[in-house]
Amino acid sequence: MNFSSDNWAGATAPVMAALARHSTGLAPAYGSDPLTESVTARFSEIFETDVSVFFVGTGTAANSLALASFAKPGGAIFCHPDAHIQVDECGCPEFMTSGGKLVSVPGTDGKFTAEALQEAMSAFPDGVVHHGQVASVSITQSTECGTVYTLDDIARIKSVALERDVALHMDGARFANALVSLSATPAEMTWKAGVDVLSFGATKNGCWCAEAVVFFNREQARGFEYFRKRGGHLFSKSRFAAAQFEGYFEEDAWLGTAAHANEMAQRLADGIRLAGGRTAWPVEANEVFPVLRRDLVERLRDGGAAFYEWSAKGLDLSIAPSADEVCLRLVTSFATSEDDVDVFLNLLGT
Amino acid sequence: MNFSSDNWAGATAPVMAALARHSTGLAPAYGSDPLTESVTARFSEIFETDVSVFFVGTGTAANSLALASFAKPGGAIFCHPDAHIQVDECGCPEFMTSGGKLVSVPGTDGKFTAEALQEAMSAFPDGVVHHGQVASVSITQSTECGTVYTLDDIARIKSVALERDVALHMDGARFANALVSLSATPAEMTWKAGVDVLSFGATKNGCWCAEAVVFFNREQARGFEYFRKRGGHLFSKSRFAAAQFEGYFEEDAWLGTAAHANEMAQRLADGIRLAGGRTAWPVEANEVFPVLRRDLVERLRDGGAAFYEWSAKGLDLSIAPSADEVCLRLVTSFATSEDDVDVFLNLLGT
Amino acid sequence: MNFSSDNWAGATAPVMAALARHSTGLAPAYGSDPLTESVTARFSEIFETDVSVFFVGTGTAANSLALASFAKPGGAIFCHPDAHIQVDECGCPEFMTSGGKLVSVPGTDGKFTAEALQEAMSAFPDGVVHHGQVASVSITQSTECGTVYTLDDIARIKSVALERDVALHMDGARFANALVSLSATPAEMTWKAGVDVLSFGATKNGCWCAEAVVFFNREQARGFEYFRKRGGHLFSKSRFAAAQFEGYFEEDAWLGTAAHANEMAQRLADGIRLAGGRTAWPVEANEVFPVLRRDLVERLRDGGAAFYEWSAKGLDLSIAPSADEVCLRLVTSFATSEDDVDVFLNLLGT
Amino acid sequence: MNFSSDNWAGATAPVMAALARHSTGLAPAYGSDPLTESVTARFSEIFETDVSVFFVGTGTAANSLALASFAKPGGAIFCHPDAHIQVDECGCPEFMTSGGKLVSVPGTDGKFTAEALQEAMSAFPDGVVHHGQVASVSITQSTECGTVYTLDDIARIKSVALERDVALHMDGARFANALVSLSATPAEMTWKAGVDVLSFGATKNGCWCAEAVVFFNREQARGFEYFRKRGGHLFSKSRFAAAQFEGYFEEDAWLGTAAHANEMAQRLADGIRLAGGRTAWPVEANEVFPVLRRDLVERLRDGGAAFYEWSAKGLDLSIAPSADEVCLRLVTSFATSEDDVDVFLNLLGT
Repeated sequence: MNFSSDNWAGATAPVMAALARHSTGLAPAYGSDPLTESVTARFSEIFETDVSVFFVGTGTAANSLALASFAKPGGAIFCHPDAHIQVDECGCPEFMTSGGKLVSVPGTDGKFTAEALQEAMSAFPDGVVHHGQVASVSITQSTECGTVYTLDDIARIKSVALERDVALHMDGARFANALVSLSATPAEMTWKAGVDVLSFGATKNGCWCAEAVVFFNREQARGFEYFRKRGGHLFSKSRFAAAQFEGYFEEDAWLGTAAHANEMAQRLADGIRLAGGRTAWPVEANEVFPVLRRDLVERLRDGGAAFYEWSAKGLDLSIAPSADEVCLRLVTSFATSEDDVDVFLNLLGT
Repeated sequence: MNFSSDNWAGATAPVMAALARHSTGLAPAYGSDPLTESVTARFSEIFETDVSVFFVGTGTAANSLALASFAKPGGAIFCHPDAHIQVDECGCPEFMTSGGKLVSVPGTDGKFTAEALQEAMSAFPDGVVHHGQVASVSITQSTECGTVYTLDDIARIKSVALERDVALHMDGARFANALVSLSATPAEMTWKAGVDVLSFGATKNGCWCAEAVVFFNREQARGFEYFRKRGGHLFSKSRFAAAQFEGYFEEDAWLGTAAHANEMAQRLADGIRLAGGRTAWPVEANEVFPVLRRDLVERLRDGGAAFYEWSAKGLDLSIAPSADEVCLRLVTSFATSEDDVDVFLNLLGT
Repeated sequence: MNFSSDNWAGATAPVMAALARHSTGLAPAYGSDPLTESVTARFSEIFETDVSVFFVGTGTAANSLALASFAKPGGAIFCHPDAHIQVDECGCPEFMTSGGKLVSVPGTDGKFTAEALQEAMSAFPDGVVHHGQVASVSITQSTECGTVYTLDDIARIKSVALERDVALHMDGARFANALVSLSATPAEMTWKAGVDVLSFGATKNGCWCAEAVVFFNREQARGFEYFRKRGGHLFSKSRFAAAQFEGYFEEDAWLGTAAHANEMAQRLADGIRLAGGRTAWPVEANEVFPVLRRDLVERLRDGGAAFYEWSAKGLDLSIAPSADEVCLRLVTSFATSEDDVDVFLNLLGT
Repeated sequence: MNFSSDNWAGATAPVMAALARHSTGLAPAYGSDPLTESVTARFSEIFETDVSVFFVGTGTAANSLALASFAKPGGAIFCHPDAHIQVDECGCPEFMTSGGKLVSVPGTDGKFTAEALQEAMSAFPDGVVHHGQVASVSITQSTECGTVYTLDDIARIKSVALERDVALHMDGARFANALVSLSATPAEMTWKAGVDVLSFGATKNGCWCAEAVVFFNREQARGFEYFRKRGGHLFSKSRFAAAQFEGYFEEDAWLGTAAHANEMAQRLADGIRLAGGRTAWPVEANEVFPVLRRDLVERLRDGGAAFYEWSAKGLDLSIAPSADEVCLRLVTSFATSEDDVDVFLNLLGT
């Protein structure tokens, strides 16, 4: 049983079927094909508004290009210290924004509050050229801690962003998992709560390589195609991305795979708690961060379980790992079976 | 019959089969999977030397990142005025090289000579900071005019690059077509002729989205993974790229599809010449640029043929379109059938 | 007698006096001092409109930052092939614009026409992402050939820029020389003719290090201070730049030095013509490009004259240097004396 | 009495005299003049080794270009959270390094320790592409808190930098103040302690606009002139920078002005302590950060004193301002008189 990451899985059957279906015949390149058009229309249906959609191949590209489109010279981009853009994208956001500074806004459970954002922004008063200027705010949904911002959390963060007239970006690498967790609609979790631009991730949830930058205000999307192309992120055979999305959305497959992954995470969490264990953060999506004794972790490994150990800084003392404990990250996906979970829990002694 | 571009085709059967084969099961992300390793080894076999290979999703990314790895402040990159990097990549090479300048080196038939390169480089004498400094040389194989540099052409260009101690890049978006055209080995057409870094294109010749940056000197490849990741071009499910290459190379499928495309181009060229027509440039790969009377072009369109008109500047007066003529670009691919060609030629009246 | 360049001279007496006058006492840093304010007001008087003025230390910085403020991803900046931004700024414009492409618009006498601009821009049709997008137009006044655009030339270029909705930049490294040459007002030669942003050069005409970016529309200047600071071009002791401008403008000193330099150039040109010589381009500002026999050039050098030889490509056959001739560049400045000129002409045998 | 900043002062008499002395006559531009050469030789004498010296106009430029020359894709630059490059340069270091990330290394008294550096660097293990890679380390001497790294502090930081094979940069905006404070030689405080590249600041200590990037290893300086020019930071009338340095170094004027500024700071500190006050950090250079009651601060202002209030986060509770206290920053310079200090102290009631 392998809980290393949701990007260790391959592609789902509907995604593969769609790719196969569209693999023959000729179609215009660079996104002017009918399939790209129909999939784009599908995005507008799903988001209940007329969106602008741009396919790219990686989440890092989606995030960085979205932020680039709101970049300013000396611009500060506000995000959680654990955000993917802050720690896992090798400076791509900084590069694509021509030198933006990612400013960490601390907060528990992988989330920051509107108040913390306001405090962080206060270091960048308008008109003081030395410190640079506020450029954008980025939140991750679900977060790197497997938690989820509530709709209200997002709306309050938006109101602070509005005070300083900057855009709100959502890194939705695990968008579907958060959506299912909140039982919200895509519209509610994005533009209705104030999100200006979304990195819509589909790769982790069953595609090969399908991410989309989604703008909810077409005016803000103007010229974005130049950012994408300048970054080398415009696919020639664009329909291969479109086909993946077609399969992804078919019969709400995407919500099904996300729901399954979340359930598997809950099943893990329940078993861990039953065994007397605890998790570093609430389990709200498809990631579980158990704090376990080192001998148990050894037993898991010996039993064939795969996962990463996780640095779990900044936890409450009541939760943080003691000297003989360690925090793990367990990620579930569409490819995780109940059996995987149960074998794992059996090893734990549940 | 559609001759718009080779990137209008989908994916070949071996490529789709490989993708399907590898779509289930878990594998490490970001290129540390066994499939990526085995495909990388295959590249070394094909090139008869120990190469460093980096998969990316677009030719623009491959070119721009390759050039970025040889960038210098105020750096000049020498290429043909028709080069893809010069006219078709929306400033991606300039952006990835942090402001490099693409200097056009003119030449007939889409190629420049070693002498023309030397002349262009002379505007950038060493040590004159105002003009910037020479950074790299880029040739396209096959060229945007459907022609092919001979091995000797490349070697002579390399010797000029060496005089100024800069790297030689080859944009091989249509690498296989050139290879087949020259009956050369991959090694002969690259490192044996002096190429330092190659954009190895597989998308146009039968993949969905599979390009590779290939370094022939591992020392020059050091740190390149940071350029790729900083550009947002590292795939998480890297095996989807590897799988495409696996299918691409299987039983030399790639050489077969390229040979087929080249043959279809020759068949077109032969028919056009039979009909008394001429081509703007020699037909050496999978592109044909006939110069035709406008009424013929109308007839082709009415008959259902698809293609682009082409700006054919700088041609000899004996070849250039007259007032009632126009130059077309016809691109063939693995998906072009003899029937496509023959119907087209019939419309032409052959 | 030294005609190497106008930047070989030092500073004029009024400039030095102003610097000395303001060298003691304390004043707010970074441009909030009273002197910067009064000098800024002086700029508005001189240009007969409410301008936004930003001091920087080099012409390269002025040009590149001005262009950066109008940059777009994949942006094309149109300029003459001999423009300083194209050949003498080591990629600074490309770097500051995050990878802009400088597109050469050819034209005789160092100038391009509105028609040539339109032709060059046609390679960048709106909406074709591959080629990038038009971003700005830059003209040099006076030009690198020592010639001057007429007010009408500028207005016609502006109308083409307007068609494509891009800004018009003027590189005024030798602004005063052109102004005096045209007997125009600063307003006429800039915003009244359609210039959006000006690099106002004062260094070559008598300052140490005083250039200004001048916007004629305050809305377009919004946020420019962040570009300047991000480039490292905001002086802390800003009054040292302001002081130079104070001295420069005092009693119209700047027009006097420019007029003197232009007169010295005319005196040179007249003498050269008297001696039967010719110049490569009309002498309209403070640069003279005589085409002389090599033996004469030797004699000049032996006599102590200093100057650069000049590559004079693209000249009419009737003007271009023959095999035993060479083109020189002679630059005059406030520091050039009539004696310098006469000794030079005597060596020529006039 | 004005303690706002040392960059509120003008230029010293020797600096003005040197500028006047060199203001006439012609000299080669762009740094090839004899004066630039002789001043460069003077730098080598002062540093007791053969240095490479590059003049620029601002400290932000010096810092950012120095860091640019050691940049890597996805590169992390380690500095104190209060460092000028981190909070006061509007993203110039990020921009010049094409998207470098400034990683804060916390530490008391404006300094970080070798241990803290090692800890911060551990988040960037070699070969983990996601997090980026270590690129350089930057320390500020004297610091933003008016303290000074000992030679041993520097050497220990260097040894950590060496472990990861990255360069050590020193931001010496107040280099002379630190030097005088330590009674060290320039060599001891730089290359002998392991500094690779120094931003040598002269502006705050008596020049108008004179900063230098100094490399102690000529090999590391190779190509730096292209970084400077690409940034728009190469002065044409370079001798105006050289002249300032000539005056600055004359008869050790620079050490005298720094010693004076430091003495004035000590006089302030002594008086404040006499009056029962305390300072937030030790007074080791030319900055004093007294923590004073608000009513006293009002009295100072009413008496005509000028200064900035200072955010003094992270102080020990025993030192930090209470609710009715505030921390001030008082900066002294060559232009501060004993009288200024005494009048200030009188207002304080000493």
